Amino acid sequence: MRIQATDERHYLVEVFTKLGFNHDDSQLLADTLVDADLRGISSHGIQRLAWYRRMIKEGTIIPQNKAKIIRELPGSVLVDANQNMGQLATVLATQKIIEKAKKTGVAIAVIRNSNHFGTAGYYTRLALEAGLVGVALTNTRPLVVPTNATQAFLGSNAFAFGFPASPYPFMFDGATCVVSGGKIQVHAKKGEPLPGEWAVDKDRQVVTDAQEAEDILATAAFTEGEQKGGGVLTLGGSNEENSNYKGMGNSIVIELLTGILAQGSISADTVSGKHDFSQFVMVLNPAFFGDPEVLKKDATSMLDRIRQLEHIPGKEIWVPGDREYRLLAENKEKGVTIDEKTYQEMKEIGTELGIDVP
Amino acid sequence: MRIQATDERHYLVEVFTKLGFNHDDSQLLADTLVDADLRGISSHGIQRLAWYRRMIKEGTIIPQNKAKIIRELPGSVLVDANQNMGQLATVLATQKIIEKAKKTGVAIAVIRNSNHFGTAGYYTRLALEAGLVGVALTNTRPLVVPTNATQAFLGSNAFAFGFPASPYPFMFDGATCVVSGGKIQVHAKKGEPLPGEWAVDKDRQVVTDAQEAEDILATAAFTEGEQKGGGVLTLGGSNEENSNYKGMGNSIVIELLTGILAQGSISADTVSGKHDFSQFVMVLNPAFFGDPEVLKKDATSMLDRIRQLEHIPGKEIWVPGDREYRLLAENKEKGVTIDEKTYQEMKEIGTELGIDVP
Repeated sequence: MRIQATDERHYLVEVFTKLGFNHDDSQLLADTLVDADLRGISSHGIQRLAWYRRMIKEGTIIPQNKAKIIRELPGSVLVDANQNMGQLATVLATQKIIEKAKKTGVAIAVIRNSNHFGTAGYYTRLALEAGLVGVALTNTRPLVVPTNATQAFLGSNAFAFGFPASPYPFMFDGATCVVSGGKIQVHAKKGEPLPGEWAVDKDRQVVTDAQEAEDILATAAFTEGEQKGGGVLTLGGSNEENSNYKGMGNSIVIELLTGILAQGSISADTVSGKHDFSQFVMVLNPAFFGDPEVLKKDATSMLDRIRQLEHIPGKEIWVPGDREYRLLAENKEKGVTIDEKTYQEMKEIGTELGIDVP
Repeated sequence: MRIQATDERHYLVEVFTKLGFNHDDSQLLADTLVDADLRGISSHGIQRLAWYRRMIKEGTIIPQNKAKIIRELPGSVLVDANQNMGQLATVLATQKIIEKAKKTGVAIAVIRNSNHFGTAGYYTRLALEAGLVGVALTNTRPLVVPTNATQAFLGSNAFAFGFPASPYPFMFDGATCVVSGGKIQVHAKKGEPLPGEWAVDKDRQVVTDAQEAEDILATAAFTEGEQKGGGVLTLGGSNEENSNYKGMGNSIVIELLTGILAQGSISADTVSGKHDFSQFVMVLNPAFFGDPEVLKKDATSMLDRIRQLEHIPGKEIWVPGDREYRLLAENKEKGVTIDEKTYQEMKEIGTELGIDVP
């Protein structure tokens, strides 16, 4: 089913307010979820609401806590999310470094003691709105098996990068591993086999049964100790010959810039109770390097040339952002798509909190 | 054959001096090539010398030119390599931003009007020696076919990342595509087939004959216009199902941060004469986020845990840096390996310039 984004937003603001967030924080949280749904990233939209609510009930997320700036330098800030939602601390941090980067050319933020922060792309879009280039990273639950390993250890570790272009920005936003856990979940829900080299079992054999892969991931993500095996592959697939160690390298880079720099948990240690995720955001000011309009024009021209390259008959060449901004235009008009299970959860939450469901 | 690194260095300093570089620049250039050979990255070692010399003769590289700082802010610097070797401008830029990052926490440099800059890892190691985290990027000749495309357009675009760890740093340094052109060249020289999904022809069929792949790359790298087809695959291989668009995304990110930010050429436009490569370097100061010794210990512990994960019987789990630092220890003792063709070139250059070959 589809509902209008304004109705989704209204509902979410009411829910977050009832769950204990103040007015501004409720507005912001609603915006991050609506934004994801509008862009077709429904894995990070309102379908997360029941999970967030469960974590609030369990005390993993504490809605009244304020994010705190621990330290700052002209180009850097260290933020403590104070066990509240990752979105709140990361927006604070991103706003802070946007101001800094206007003076220094570049600035970074590390967020510790955090929770899930929605789509990484949300923060790079804040940078883009300020005319800046943005990068956002997060670690996650442990889902990914390093090269030659038979156990999950690394996070699916999101990487978002936004650069100004027309008619919309270059927007890369996704897990560093071959696919996110969410994509495997979608195949499991539909009862469809996995179409590529996405996951392996405890003997590092490629798994094509989506439900089997989903079970492997659930165990990897939530089990302490040694009984688990298998997980999602790094970008590059199952064999060393196709350079899957490069995918592993990209994933470890994010572990270092998030959990290690933040002195929080690495993905492997987020399995129990409290998340303790960490995030990293960087913004840089293209105006330092040249006329922003010229840079934007040059980027646009390059992306257009890529789209127009000779290609396999019947296929198109899409660059990062194309899918998202096409869906954004469509969903703004037609409303966002909500699956049946999520709509049931929305109704339960509505009944419990005394809120009308759109 | 093997020669001692000190002999290689001595020879190279003499050659670069005779080619018109001043004493300091000759020392630095020799160091970058010896460093690559010591680490087993022979594609970027002394085997590049004949190519560098040819570009100097042709006027693509002008040894007397000085790199210039065009603009700076507290966290940023824009450098013009002034059509001299990329190594000279990038060392200048990296030293500059190391000083800046000590005050601001992070700093970036963009280098325009540059040439080949050796291994990207060299500059991240400069950062590591100063106790900082380093990132270095460069664009290259066009070798890489985007998802669904049948033409090369993107560079093999190197990404290096260094983070302090014991007994040696985490060092990731490589092409963002599935393999570098150099690796295909090695297979062609040995007459061995390509073992993975590395390259495709003009119909986007995977090529396993190394010489055929090598011919495709040579055409892609040096031909203007439309007659070329095929190239190296992005990380993720030939099929969209294995998320090769993520590898494409990583490659485009580097195009944006190098050629576009520098207002130089994108990889696709470096095919004729003058290289006009661009580079990007970032350093950040881990001491801002926590005690550097603790961060180093945490990183080391994570890397050790990865190395010790359960794995396929008979295989090892290596993390980025392991191969390089093992070879460094071995080559420091036994000398660096020089292939026969390179040694012939060294002799020819020696005869021409009146320099004894080690």
